[in-house]
Amino acid sequence: MDTQQHSPGPVVIFGAGMMGTAMTWPLRKRGHPVRLVGTHLDAAIIESVRNSSLHPGLGLPLPEGVEAFALSELRQALVGARALVLGVSSAGVPWAAQQLGPLLGTGYPVAMVAKGLAWDERELRVLPDAFVHALPAGIGAGIDPVAIAGPCIAGELAREVPTCVLLTSRNGERAREWAELLAGPYYHVWTETDVIAVEACAALKNAYAMGIALASGLHSARGGAPGSIALHNYEAAVFAQAIWEMGELIRLLGGNPQHAAGLAGVGDLDVTCNGGRTGRFGQLLGQGLGPARAIERMQGATLECLDILRTLRAASRSFEAQGRLAPGALPLAEQLAAIALDGAPVDMPFSRFFGGEHSRQS
Amino acid sequence: MDTQQHSPGPVVIFGAGMMGTAMTWPLRKRGHPVRLVGTHLDAAIIESVRNSSLHPGLGLPLPEGVEAFALSELRQALVGARALVLGVSSAGVPWAAQQLGPLLGTGYPVAMVAKGLAWDERELRVLPDAFVHALPAGIGAGIDPVAIAGPCIAGELAREVPTCVLLTSRNGERAREWAELLAGPYYHVWTETDVIAVEACAALKNAYAMGIALASGLHSARGGAPGSIALHNYEAAVFAQAIWEMGELIRLLGGNPQHAAGLAGVGDLDVTCNGGRTGRFGQLLGQGLGPARAIERMQGATLECLDILRTLRAASRSFEAQGRLAPGALPLAEQLAAIALDGAPVDMPFSRFFGGEHSRQS
Repeated sequence: MDTQQHSPGPVVIFGAGMMGTAMTWPLRKRGHPVRLVGTHLDAAIIESVRNSSLHPGLGLPLPEGVEAFALSELRQALVGARALVLGVSSAGVPWAAQQLGPLLGTGYPVAMVAKGLAWDERELRVLPDAFVHALPAGIGAGIDPVAIAGPCIAGELAREVPTCVLLTSRNGERAREWAELLAGPYYHVWTETDVIAVEACAALKNAYAMGIALASGLHSARGGAPGSIALHNYEAAVFAQAIWEMGELIRLLGGNPQHAAGLAGVGDLDVTCNGGRTGRFGQLLGQGLGPARAIERMQGATLECLDILRTLRAASRSFEAQGRLAPGALPLAEQLAAIALDGAPVDMPFSRFFGGEHSRQS
Repeated sequence: MDTQQHSPGPVVIFGAGMMGTAMTWPLRKRGHPVRLVGTHLDAAIIESVRNSSLHPGLGLPLPEGVEAFALSELRQALVGARALVLGVSSAGVPWAAQQLGPLLGTGYPVAMVAKGLAWDERELRVLPDAFVHALPAGIGAGIDPVAIAGPCIAGELAREVPTCVLLTSRNGERAREWAELLAGPYYHVWTETDVIAVEACAALKNAYAMGIALASGLHSARGGAPGSIALHNYEAAVFAQAIWEMGELIRLLGGNPQHAAGLAGVGDLDVTCNGGRTGRFGQLLGQGLGPARAIERMQGATLECLDILRTLRAASRSFEAQGRLAPGALPLAEQLAAIALDGAPVDMPFSRFFGGEHSRQS
């Protein structure tokens, strides 16, 4: 691998949270100087990095070749840079677009670690489109942001755990450029132009991972200890139904449902079940705590699953009203929304899974 | 649910191991008297059931309404019975066909808990076909065995954990008959005529579950404790590639690759990762023990993953020689065979996943 060809200018990462910062490692591996710019939420992180190079969230020093910048220095950080990684979360995307708008030229290369769907009262919009839409008028043209999807826990990426990701953009050339910038010995990269499919998977996986974790909570509420006599049959059926519903939603939005079976669907759902807060929240709901107490126990952790369940419920109702979605076509998502948003009991509609079980059809 | 309509005669279960015996619970729930017949391997189980109704493997007493029979009483057990559940493992299927051949009339209803593929030096044969093929000449006609696939751990089924299964047979009517016999409040049943697809998933899942567990073994070999900084990115990429390769093999065999994303693929793979010995064996290999020591540590546990890796390697070589499979089309399966059969180091060919990563294609 020739790192020289990639050194004409530094790459800026805007947003110094866990995932944004973790992108430092593959970028440095390819030889790019990195400029890490904190948002207003990241002041303490930037200070720590400047003082000791330690990133407190990741618990690691950053590699050599990284310069830290405060939000007020964003413009300065972009001078002479070749590309921008947008490291903010999905909630921060419109804000970041406002900050960046005046600073990005036409066709500037942008990759986003945030991924998913936003609801604008009429359509589910993929996050790269939401970013472009939030740029000041006239700026968005030619900026085709690439979203980074697939199973990637930030703390593992920063420790150089082998990781396989999918770079998605309607502009395939742009996705391939980013693949050239990023791909390395432990960061494996595929590109995909079906943004709808990939972003639908990325959005839904948090909601469904919460649903998969209910089984483990139900088990422990019944006094169960870890071991083979648990509720794995229950959990695995929910996992399969999650992939089935991802496929249904992708189809509705005009993407290829087979992506639900790939890195962005199966892969990211698996890693989200293993990776932390979403699973813990699902377990608490499975134990019967109800949403209010479960949220309290999560001590302020970001719960993307609640956002996407609200988004999905609003979108489903609208699509049903428009005749684009058959009522009850997503029984798992519907039930998860009832459990997590309305406090409904944990009661899984298995017989409605996979289009309806045999005994319901006959 | 009307249980009366299902009571004209008892259902025989042949094979009193964990999974065969676990089928007692959904059958009793539908009101069928059950006759449980042990094989020559099950003598101690049958004695225990007769003495105390306890099944030692499941650690549970059997429900009321179950009669236990020794192998020598197989003929007697079948008198007046309405249907047969074949409870033996895949290795026992030809033997069971020999025992049963003279006793089964044309068109007798048979359902099998064993599932998978057998290699006959030319073709991968689905297990229902292998059963029919092993029946004495002239007996097999009209017997269309139904295979029971999907995520189902026996110990959980016997404890009435909600379970979703797929009944598969080329004879859809036969599958629907069995769905009527079996479906109940916690045993949810779908039917499917694409036997090739379902059985390919069922066979491959053991091999791939072993591969998914390598990550956890690698992590512990590096001194890692359970927690978020593990090798979940690695594991999730292998999971997604496993589903991808299942799809490839299904396509090669003439089935619909979308089943890899369903209950038989994703669902059964997930439950197998959680369910016990295959995962433990993969962890030992991931720790670097090598196959001989890993097998020794498993203390005689059945390792289906080794059988299917041998089968798949033989079949792949033959298919490649016939020009039906591109060399290297199943890089994960190939590498898992090298690790588990030849003692190759645990080195995952990520860049060959999903048809080859971007940097290899460009």
